[in-house]
Amino acid sequence: MEKLTIVKVGGKIVEEVESLNQLLTDFKSISGNKILVHGGGRSATAIAAKLGVETTMVEGRRVTDKEMLDVVTMVYGGLVNKNIVAGLQAKGCNAVGLTGADMDIIRSIKRPVKEIDYGYVGDVMDVNTRELSLLMEQGVTPVIAPLTHDGKGQLLNTNADTIASELAIALSENYKVFLVYCFEKDGVLSNPEDNSSLILEIDTELYKQYKADGTIGEGMIPKLDNAFMALSSGVTEVIITNAKNLTRPQQRGTVVRK
Amino acid sequence: MEKLTIVKVGGKIVEEVESLNQLLTDFKSISGNKILVHGGGRSATAIAAKLGVETTMVEGRRVTDKEMLDVVTMVYGGLVNKNIVAGLQAKGCNAVGLTGADMDIIRSIKRPVKEIDYGYVGDVMDVNTRELSLLMEQGVTPVIAPLTHDGKGQLLNTNADTIASELAIALSENYKVFLVYCFEKDGVLSNPEDNSSLILEIDTELYKQYKADGTIGEGMIPKLDNAFMALSSGVTEVIITNAKNLTRPQQRGTVVRK
Repeated sequence: MEKLTIVKVGGKIVEEVESLNQLLTDFKSISGNKILVHGGGRSATAIAAKLGVETTMVEGRRVTDKEMLDVVTMVYGGLVNKNIVAGLQAKGCNAVGLTGADMDIIRSIKRPVKEIDYGYVGDVMDVNTRELSLLMEQGVTPVIAPLTHDGKGQLLNTNADTIASELAIALSENYKVFLVYCFEKDGVLSNPEDNSSLILEIDTELYKQYKADGTIGEGMIPKLDNAFMALSSGVTEVIITNAKNLTRPQQRGTVVRK
Repeated sequence: MEKLTIVKVGGKIVEEVESLNQLLTDFKSISGNKILVHGGGRSATAIAAKLGVETTMVEGRRVTDKEMLDVVTMVYGGLVNKNIVAGLQAKGCNAVGLTGADMDIIRSIKRPVKEIDYGYVGDVMDVNTRELSLLMEQGVTPVIAPLTHDGKGQLLNTNADTIASELAIALSENYKVFLVYCFEKDGVLSNPEDNSSLILEIDTELYKQYKADGTIGEGMIPKLDNAFMALSSGVTEVIITNAKNLTRPQQRGTVVRK
């Protein structure tokens, strides 16, 4: 099977000109098939505020009413996605910007209301890899915004980490998939404020232990849950690392193992 | 050669739920290869106002400073484009939303400043049909937002009528192209306020005459210039019609002939 690298980048990286430019240079240099999945939450919050739309977060997840859905559709699907595409094109990488609605790539269901009504948030139901594979065979690099659709005309806001792992799982049927979560820290840290506390390798046993003793805090748990889910569903390797180490094989951040 | 229908829709059509829904139903029913090109100017103006960005139009064209470029990137590339895509998917049409930056489809040059500085407005330089054709061969329907790029990382705002005619011209090398400009009037009218004054057919000679005697006013001239340019560059037929007549062959609006 051919190799495929899926890079998820979020946090401050894509929303600041300099770090974005460095990321795109590094991403471009990855050989073989590749996909970039991005966030954009900070920009969405800023634009929402300017439009008088209030941002409400519950357990790190954005509550998405109709107005906020329009904001994230504009910011993730338009502003962030298309600037990344233009930036990659300038570096000679033939990118195409897509949401889950495009070519029906990712279908989701509006999250059922339990204690919390998250609004127009979609939980992934089905990933269609046919056209993505076809585009990659032609040398095209997909850039995916964290939006999905329900197949009935409704766009839905979906967590970018989840989109990255769901794509990785679905594509692992036809590719040897390497999933890289990039952000502004060096990896999973035992002390979030101290980059020197990097955990070089983590497996299911260690993860349990670190969760129990509080070494790994709340912010990192959804990302690691996604990582372990990907590994147990066919993905070859998952790494959590600093965006600036994306192309430095000697500084691999945290390697997640089954 | 296979048939390809390119529909450009603008004005109020795509920005009101009911007329958009009808348009998407009609568009979906067009057989064979098809491409939808959309505008979104009214929404851009409304969102810009909410964000405190002033809209300046010169001869019907939007002056696009950095802030306005962000607005049109959000509105055209995100809000309008992705809602059309989700709407078409719901009708069983496998749409993909694209700008000119995606897969390097449309490269443009920032308009040189003469009397007027239009800002980040792009004049089309080069259309690349390779990936568009490939997608259509797979049954995918491109939905194009009126944004292009300069190949150096800069997105540019480009008139949707022009994008439609440039795509039509480039694709006429490999397809028999029918170009349909849809809007909220019945076609080219000799009295803009009176739908019964519809001009059923217009050719170069009549166009000259109507321009000279004032029958055709300023608003229609760029659209007709695009139409005649398309016809003289390989496009098979151009029609200017009411969106609600898109699938009514007995009410074809204005047929433009060489």
